[in-house]
Amino acid sequence: MSQKRIVIAGAGLVGSLTAVLLGRKGYKVTVLERRPDMRAVQIPAGRSINLAMSDRGWRALEKAGLAEEVRPIAIPMYKRTMHDEQKNLTYQPYGKDGEAIYSVSRGLLNKLLLSAAERDKEDVEILFDKRITDVDLDAQVLHIRDEETGQQQEIGYDILLGADGAYSAVRNRLMYNDRFSYSQTYIEHGYKELHMPPGADGKHLMEVETLHIWPRGEYMMIALPNPDGTFTCTLFFPWEGKESFASVQTDEEIDALFRRRFPDLIDLIPDYREQFRHNPTSSLMYVKCHPWNYKGNILLLGDAAHAIVPFYGQGMNAGFEDARIFTEMLEANDWDFEKVILAFAEIQYKNGHAVADLAMRNFVEMRDLTADPEFLLRKKIERKVHEKSPSEWVPLYSMVTFRETGYAEAWAEGLRQDRIMEQVMQLPGIHENWDSDAVTDLVLSLNKTVK
Amino acid sequence: MSQKRIVIAGAGLVGSLTAVLLGRKGYKVTVLERRPDMRAVQIPAGRSINLAMSDRGWRALEKAGLAEEVRPIAIPMYKRTMHDEQKNLTYQPYGKDGEAIYSVSRGLLNKLLLSAAERDKEDVEILFDKRITDVDLDAQVLHIRDEETGQQQEIGYDILLGADGAYSAVRNRLMYNDRFSYSQTYIEHGYKELHMPPGADGKHLMEVETLHIWPRGEYMMIALPNPDGTFTCTLFFPWEGKESFASVQTDEEIDALFRRRFPDLIDLIPDYREQFRHNPTSSLMYVKCHPWNYKGNILLLGDAAHAIVPFYGQGMNAGFEDARIFTEMLEANDWDFEKVILAFAEIQYKNGHAVADLAMRNFVEMRDLTADPEFLLRKKIERKVHEKSPSEWVPLYSMVTFRETGYAEAWAEGLRQDRIMEQVMQLPGIHENWDSDAVTDLVLSLNKTVK
Repeated sequence: MSQKRIVIAGAGLVGSLTAVLLGRKGYKVTVLERRPDMRAVQIPAGRSINLAMSDRGWRALEKAGLAEEVRPIAIPMYKRTMHDEQKNLTYQPYGKDGEAIYSVSRGLLNKLLLSAAERDKEDVEILFDKRITDVDLDAQVLHIRDEETGQQQEIGYDILLGADGAYSAVRNRLMYNDRFSYSQTYIEHGYKELHMPPGADGKHLMEVETLHIWPRGEYMMIALPNPDGTFTCTLFFPWEGKESFASVQTDEEIDALFRRRFPDLIDLIPDYREQFRHNPTSSLMYVKCHPWNYKGNILLLGDAAHAIVPFYGQGMNAGFEDARIFTEMLEANDWDFEKVILAFAEIQYKNGHAVADLAMRNFVEMRDLTADPEFLLRKKIERKVHEKSPSEWVPLYSMVTFRETGYAEAWAEGLRQDRIMEQVMQLPGIHENWDSDAVTDLVLSLNKTVK
Repeated sequence: MSQKRIVIAGAGLVGSLTAVLLGRKGYKVTVLERRPDMRAVQIPAGRSINLAMSDRGWRALEKAGLAEEVRPIAIPMYKRTMHDEQKNLTYQPYGKDGEAIYSVSRGLLNKLLLSAAERDKEDVEILFDKRITDVDLDAQVLHIRDEETGQQQEIGYDILLGADGAYSAVRNRLMYNDRFSYSQTYIEHGYKELHMPPGADGKHLMEVETLHIWPRGEYMMIALPNPDGTFTCTLFFPWEGKESFASVQTDEEIDALFRRRFPDLIDLIPDYREQFRHNPTSSLMYVKCHPWNYKGNILLLGDAAHAIVPFYGQGMNAGFEDARIFTEMLEANDWDFEKVILAFAEIQYKNGHAVADLAMRNFVEMRDLTADPEFLLRKKIERKVHEKSPSEWVPLYSMVTFRETGYAEAWAEGLRQDRIMEQVMQLPGIHENWDSDAVTDLVLSLNKTVK
């Protein structure tokens, strides 16, 4: 086996999974993590973060032989449950029978992956509290500072995989290279987590196997279930404006917001005022960059390459898919890292840009369109067409969530579907005849002609 | 007068001009420049760089009392001269009678501004070879390294103006702030300068008071006159592809390109092969960011805030306008720097984003549309309307170049003019009747109704 020195920056989800995938093949891998070992640290309130695992994530875990270990901490969500301001509920299935996305705690999943990587002690070492202060691209040397001791250190690498997240130190170094295009875009919304406790019986206070949404046009609340009977609720809310973090600060203002906009949450989260005041407010941003590589010896993976907003539940899934595809390309190319880094970077960055755009689009869908009867009708028609002809018509959400179509291809196909469905929704009598064969046939026929 | 410590990062065009404007008011200003004093250094071949000064630039120089000093080194260009592949010439005036843009050497202009700033020795000091290595935002302290001696130094500031260019160190520090959106976008073209010597009589080999363009669709050459009888020619050319820097490298390939595409330059630049091989190839990028300030004590100006591609000749003009507007806002607000920094940043960033977009648009116009008879006809119609009714119809190019309409407003108005002129250009017989009163009247009437 090669004695290449492989260094992975970041022991987050993507770094740990990549370490598992390479370690299993006998590669010596050193993982450098800036933070302390999270297995020994308590996660602070309001920072729990749930992920929605979908097919891309599961497939990568299967490749690493870890899917069965993750299943017990994953709760299936088969549909969206929309809460309106009169406490009425409506529903929208995510896919066909049995198709679901899965609520997983980011922390639990990361700990599981760290331990899986370390099981292979001979090949994988994870060093914590190591901050990368500089990368010498020519010498292929990382400059490291130990965050506990302050000690400086240098580590050489043959291959450096930058899986060090949205604020990647590796990417920050590449940013000073000529012809490295880069953007970080903060959106006009921030978020705040609220914790919904279990009921007196220790069980969930709302239906469990669903993703709850309070769509309010310009903003929304969502809630994902946890295995301990709780829900993690997240408010995505503008920083400034009439209804915003800036204008809602006192108990009276918080009260007024919840009474008017989230009346059903008042009983379910008794201390919502205190939580709103005390839990942190965080910003949301996405990153696009190009190229993802430096020559054949540095490659960005996951959030370091394509941090996105959380609204499609695809951040972790896209990162895991990077690790899976990268490993499969290595297998198919006789573990020629240099060749695969160049090829992977040039193929995948378009998917990274597309998933960033998809995630922004889904914010509008979740916060606004899920409260729009026209949109819900369109989704019903699409689902019917999909059931009748599953290979010819795959709705955009299903392509992203339940298939492995490249994000760029899915995005282009989704825009084409928009053009078709705009025509269909204008048919006279569509509200009465939506589930007729004539409508289904029209969609399938337009699908053959509309470019 | 206030004893505020004002530090300007960068002694380039915008930093020097700002130092003049503030120094004249009695403010103590320290300017930190990373490079050596350019007045003592020879500019290397292929790095001469001409600027096209237009009204925004002149107005700022007038405010600083320097316009008359600059006029002798500025050559007016009243029109575009297009060179086709058969050596034919066509012409397109820039504006109305007497309206011109001015070719100025970047280096000469910068030296003149440095000396003007230092004339005011009591108030302005310029320190060279000082690299900003970090900015402590809370303590308001700059960490500096002397590039000659390696000595470290700290300098406090009350107000820090980041005029340190496209690769601004001040902006790089702000980039790590929460909610600082940033993009650097490299375009698919690079550029290479070629030097056209004077004739045997010491005079220019081509018509002087014009900007020469060789529009070639996907790329172009341009040439701007210098006072010493030379022209600076610049080839804007793709990095990759069939005709590109990657595919044109040997003498044979360079020869083939020039024989086919630039036949009239072969005699005018006898050593074009050697120059093409030896002169550097540089990349082109633009920067957008937001916000341009940090609280009320740091403000980005010029390229640091809005580096743009050179195709509208607006980079320096936009930067000078920043300095002029900033100073005028200070005058109007009793020199309340904190208040003006907040207000300026929030007003001007939209113009910075717009001028970046305008510059990209003009690349397509210069390299492609100036060879398109339909486009040239449209421009002729617009000019006629403008002459008939100068206040009602100001062509986009004139708004940008000869007026001081905010770039964002000009950009929006330009898009509206596009919609009007698309209708006009589709009139039957437009090629014959373009200069009839009926056409002029139609444009003016559409101008009242089209949104």
